Amino acid sequence: MSELGVGLIGTGYMGKCHALAFTQVHAVFGDGPVIRLAHLSEVTAELAATRAAEFGFARSGADWRALVTDPEVDVVSVTTPNQFHAEMAIAALEAGKHVWCEKPMATSIDDAVRMRDAVRASGKVAVLGYNYIQSPMVRQIAAILAAGTIGPVNHFRVEMDEDYMADAAAPFGWKSEAASGYGALDDFGVHPVSLIHTLLGRIVRVAGHQSKPYASRPLAAGGSRIVENHDIAAVLCELDTGASGVIALSRSAWGRKGRIALQIFGERGSVVFDQERFNELQLFVADGDPATQGFRTILAAPVHEPYNRFIPSPGHGLGFNDLKVIECHELLRRIAGQPSRTIDFDAGLGIEYAIWAMHESAVTGRWIDVPE
Amino acid sequence: MSELGVGLIGTGYMGKCHALAFTQVHAVFGDGPVIRLAHLSEVTAELAATRAAEFGFARSGADWRALVTDPEVDVVSVTTPNQFHAEMAIAALEAGKHVWCEKPMATSIDDAVRMRDAVRASGKVAVLGYNYIQSPMVRQIAAILAAGTIGPVNHFRVEMDEDYMADAAAPFGWKSEAASGYGALDDFGVHPVSLIHTLLGRIVRVAGHQSKPYASRPLAAGGSRIVENHDIAAVLCELDTGASGVIALSRSAWGRKGRIALQIFGERGSVVFDQERFNELQLFVADGDPATQGFRTILAAPVHEPYNRFIPSPGHGLGFNDLKVIECHELLRRIAGQPSRTIDFDAGLGIEYAIWAMHESAVTGRWIDVPE
Amino acid sequence: MSELGVGLIGTGYMGKCHALAFTQVHAVFGDGPVIRLAHLSEVTAELAATRAAEFGFARSGADWRALVTDPEVDVVSVTTPNQFHAEMAIAALEAGKHVWCEKPMATSIDDAVRMRDAVRASGKVAVLGYNYIQSPMVRQIAAILAAGTIGPVNHFRVEMDEDYMADAAAPFGWKSEAASGYGALDDFGVHPVSLIHTLLGRIVRVAGHQSKPYASRPLAAGGSRIVENHDIAAVLCELDTGASGVIALSRSAWGRKGRIALQIFGERGSVVFDQERFNELQLFVADGDPATQGFRTILAAPVHEPYNRFIPSPGHGLGFNDLKVIECHELLRRIAGQPSRTIDFDAGLGIEYAIWAMHESAVTGRWIDVPE
Amino acid sequence: MSELGVGLIGTGYMGKCHALAFTQVHAVFGDGPVIRLAHLSEVTAELAATRAAEFGFARSGADWRALVTDPEVDVVSVTTPNQFHAEMAIAALEAGKHVWCEKPMATSIDDAVRMRDAVRASGKVAVLGYNYIQSPMVRQIAAILAAGTIGPVNHFRVEMDEDYMADAAAPFGWKSEAASGYGALDDFGVHPVSLIHTLLGRIVRVAGHQSKPYASRPLAAGGSRIVENHDIAAVLCELDTGASGVIALSRSAWGRKGRIALQIFGERGSVVFDQERFNELQLFVADGDPATQGFRTILAAPVHEPYNRFIPSPGHGLGFNDLKVIECHELLRRIAGQPSRTIDFDAGLGIEYAIWAMHESAVTGRWIDVPE
Repeated sequence: MSELGVGLIGTGYMGKCHALAFTQVHAVFGDGPVIRLAHLSEVTAELAATRAAEFGFARSGADWRALVTDPEVDVVSVTTPNQFHAEMAIAALEAGKHVWCEKPMATSIDDAVRMRDAVRASGKVAVLGYNYIQSPMVRQIAAILAAGTIGPVNHFRVEMDEDYMADAAAPFGWKSEAASGYGALDDFGVHPVSLIHTLLGRIVRVAGHQSKPYASRPLAAGGSRIVENHDIAAVLCELDTGASGVIALSRSAWGRKGRIALQIFGERGSVVFDQERFNELQLFVADGDPATQGFRTILAAPVHEPYNRFIPSPGHGLGFNDLKVIECHELLRRIAGQPSRTIDFDAGLGIEYAIWAMHESAVTGRWIDVPE
Repeated sequence: MSELGVGLIGTGYMGKCHALAFTQVHAVFGDGPVIRLAHLSEVTAELAATRAAEFGFARSGADWRALVTDPEVDVVSVTTPNQFHAEMAIAALEAGKHVWCEKPMATSIDDAVRMRDAVRASGKVAVLGYNYIQSPMVRQIAAILAAGTIGPVNHFRVEMDEDYMADAAAPFGWKSEAASGYGALDDFGVHPVSLIHTLLGRIVRVAGHQSKPYASRPLAAGGSRIVENHDIAAVLCELDTGASGVIALSRSAWGRKGRIALQIFGERGSVVFDQERFNELQLFVADGDPATQGFRTILAAPVHEPYNRFIPSPGHGLGFNDLKVIECHELLRRIAGQPSRTIDFDAGLGIEYAIWAMHESAVTGRWIDVPE
Repeated sequence: MSELGVGLIGTGYMGKCHALAFTQVHAVFGDGPVIRLAHLSEVTAELAATRAAEFGFARSGADWRALVTDPEVDVVSVTTPNQFHAEMAIAALEAGKHVWCEKPMATSIDDAVRMRDAVRASGKVAVLGYNYIQSPMVRQIAAILAAGTIGPVNHFRVEMDEDYMADAAAPFGWKSEAASGYGALDDFGVHPVSLIHTLLGRIVRVAGHQSKPYASRPLAAGGSRIVENHDIAAVLCELDTGASGVIALSRSAWGRKGRIALQIFGERGSVVFDQERFNELQLFVADGDPATQGFRTILAAPVHEPYNRFIPSPGHGLGFNDLKVIECHELLRRIAGQPSRTIDFDAGLGIEYAIWAMHESAVTGRWIDVPE
Repeated sequence: MSELGVGLIGTGYMGKCHALAFTQVHAVFGDGPVIRLAHLSEVTAELAATRAAEFGFARSGADWRALVTDPEVDVVSVTTPNQFHAEMAIAALEAGKHVWCEKPMATSIDDAVRMRDAVRASGKVAVLGYNYIQSPMVRQIAAILAAGTIGPVNHFRVEMDEDYMADAAAPFGWKSEAASGYGALDDFGVHPVSLIHTLLGRIVRVAGHQSKPYASRPLAAGGSRIVENHDIAAVLCELDTGASGVIALSRSAWGRKGRIALQIFGERGSVVFDQERFNELQLFVADGDPATQGFRTILAAPVHEPYNRFIPSPGHGLGFNDLKVIECHELLRRIAGQPSRTIDFDAGLGIEYAIWAMHESAVTGRWIDVPE
């Protein structure tokens, strides 16, 4: 049985999620390499040591460059703030490591292109952390579409809403700085685009709009500061398939906590999904007795692989962190040269281009073609 | 107790609905004039006589001009196909009758302007059949907004979907002809706009998009015919209040039967509503213990007037036809010079302008200002 | 076209509901006799006159005996408090009138037997106001069961909950007196039994339990009074078909407003229904691809007769009062000698026997056979 | 940092679940001992070796007695079929190990008593695998009840339904043998009782009923065999608090996959919960403006500890396996002498007594007091 040494840079939200995924993946799936937690890096050596003890990593430190060149490390998880992704991922690839990098890819198209070029040059595997495409029910949607159950898709809608920016009284934070990105459009938009590109087709033309719920936010020290980006966005889309769609995003939508609501309409039926209830899927098929047609609520079950690797009983429910375990397994399959469901740096660049075009449209007030 | 004589032109879907409303309104509300069902008009005298017997009208015939000048008639219900609204409503107003005209107002802006001018000249009451604004839960939304419960609104989304055009195998019908209108944009769009204008503010700027699920449809006689309008539409909106929003429409959305889904996001909370469950309302308010915050499902109850006029128990449910009874009562209040919740021809023209701008934008690919 | 003269005794909740039903039934269904609102009776002549004016009755008064013998009256609606049902219904039958009597039938088995005997002696039609069996979705459940779609039923559960007795601070009222009945067991229990007897089979054996949320309630004048009956009840049941089931009832269930929740489990599928969303029905059928099985939510539609008599579009929703219009139409069909879906005094007596047995079991702590 | 050596007997459904829990618990919670996966036992040495490699155990074998006496082992997980629980748990306790034993405790009251006695004699910790009480939302229910938010509870209902025995055509299996237990009553009933005893009070008196959806089931070899226990059961309950309740159970309920539906009614509000959507909780509180009262849907969030140990964002959803991680952490806390939320062998015996009484009542047709 082969082994794989893991290096982890960053131990926040996604860093812990990567650590838990690597910890479990072999036991859950019962295949692939044995995982060695080799090296963990954080901003200080103290924090790194603490986290390494918690997560069970053998070595730790504050020098991520030492991590990416550590011979014990075969794959590097990059879970740091977005502006560091490019530099770290490229360095890891240049050091001959595989890379598992959190989304979004980078904070500029230029960086994303450089990352894509780096992986091409390296011959290594580089995969982005688009976890929502990994859920058994999203895979089931893909299966339904592939089987033609609802026929060719003519229209879709995707909403992504949370409320972590909804409190007008919360102090101005870095998420409201222009330097952090466009706001909802990239902070959230990449997830809907990852789902659309995976399930439906490539977005080729967009008309976007952005707005601010609050023009300024209070400063902790008193006074207020102008908000520099947009917590709300909406986009009209055309796909290469001819389907049309709408994307609507808000990170100031009170009451929404992890909503990614998908509606897909086809010639013979419809699919509806909401990430807040991601162990469920709604399917309408226009056949059979009209008196008993209706949206059926399908509960995630062992038949929806790889649910069965986690739980042998239907309707018991996977968790958010389990999606990362599945993603980790797909990464390992890709490293092993097996077919896998991953968003690599080529696909990731495609997502970045779509977001760029949405923003360009919002700024110019014109329909924009998405670069390929 | 005063009396009011009713003339009804048209006895289809909405015609019957008007007849049932006039039949019940006095018993339900226990106030206002006694209603006399005076005169009914249909395309043939035979059909008119049959319907008059069913609905209990005293007189009937195939000559709607005789109806609008019948001295027994005080108010004329116009429930004929849209292209006849202008001619009939104007004739009735000129004959000194009040008018209750189904939506949409007309099939051209010019006609709508002429209707608005006719009512101004007549000094009579003319009201449009925008029934969804009459529901107790939509009124409750208005009350919530007026009370500031969710604070100023910064974003909204309205979807209206049905599936009566979803079957690709159904033969080409008049709804697919350009003469019938834009398609989803006017056939459906007027309802969301009536709700937005009533609840949120005036739409001032739009970017629209239209698409066709099926480029052509089969002819009953064999072969097929090009579809001339669009069953799907989506619109980005700006309101005079500064709020942004999205309207999405499809009359080919399999499984949707009467969906008008509203999401309204404010500074302190959110409201969610779906016409398919129009006796319910979802409200999130960002206060109290964070551990017990959540969208609450409010069931229509006597406290939500005028539910109490129909049923003294909460949670028992009004029906679609009851909304028309409420609308009828508002019409009678307006005729009596009392405050009422109605969309008159001035407000109706505002809705028509918004739809026009959406279409203009879809055709030109540019943002369009809505005329006032 | 024939005519039918209506006499209405009582104009409270159900009285108004009967009046609205008689007012509309001919226009809704377009068949049957023309309805004349002949005579209305209330406790005072003044109230009777007011109501008659509101509802459009020709005559009114405080003497219900004059009403039941009025030659203008063909059918008598009895909507008075339960203790008057027997006397009034029997008098009407003896006067040669048809009777439409609200549920429950009577306040004692003896009275119910006398009512049953009276209708047999009269040769007239007597029907009880069990409106919930009339809903299109409950009829659709019957159709599903008859078609064998879910196979033979092996288990069911019915819950009926409201919260109008839930407030411990509300003053003691007549509903808490022993004279008003057992409490939840008869006040609510008759509805679940009407549904079970209509849909599933006869209840033959029961074990019941009753409890009180509040041992006493405050008196308006100060002090408190012992509650004499039980707001909560639960019953284990066996049907003549061999199926088992549970009935659970509470009129002190905070948040429940009109819940009558049905779960029916068969050999090949299941049906779930809740009166609070009575335009919907949930159906699970164990066939087809396991990956897409699920409870489907069926929306009431024209295909579910007689929904089509009210609305030609699916998913638009009937209201609670519409159920009474359907019930009225079934009454008229029965009077006309046509097949109809009604609970007559024979079936009503069966319901009373079941409730009696449940109470007897609760009091004795033993399983009790239901008399036939 | 201390260490704890784990021995795992059994690697089926729950065995893997224990393994995953021990693997993650330290990384998830960041506290407690470091876990050493010391020894794994299965029915054959080959299977044991395979599983040990998958799960990462250091040693493996087919001799569970060697495992319970292995000095490397501090705590023994017993996840074998129910009939082996007593022997293994007692042996482990006698060997001075802590025990984590899956539910139900044993297949006879005698065995359960012996287990309880063994743990008392040992001075060690023994905990049962009642995972549903560990969920953040069930803990939130406990917090709501403790805070008096819904006032004293007067009534409850618990349903537990799955459909794994619903297929009449499935061959007779060991679950239908009397030797496997009563059927639904113990197979499922222990979970509702664990929730009731944890949240509401002790069940003191019961009336039970059992039924069979299928009298016999086909044999794989042809012919059929009489089913010896009952897939359906229902129980009326009284609690020591005076509250009444209903438990309803079916393992033949088509479409139900992991339903454990709780309804709790109090003097000032209600709580509703369903394990199929266990990241949600419904709460109704009878206060504030009546026009905006309703059941609120609370999504699991960091504020609902220990959700925050898994995910820092609200509404993202824990999984079924995460409940076992929480349970494992509670076990570790108990071993460390800290306050913990666990069902030990004393509490487990109380659950067994309640189930015994339910069965006794079903068999005798009498109300039965639950032994203490």
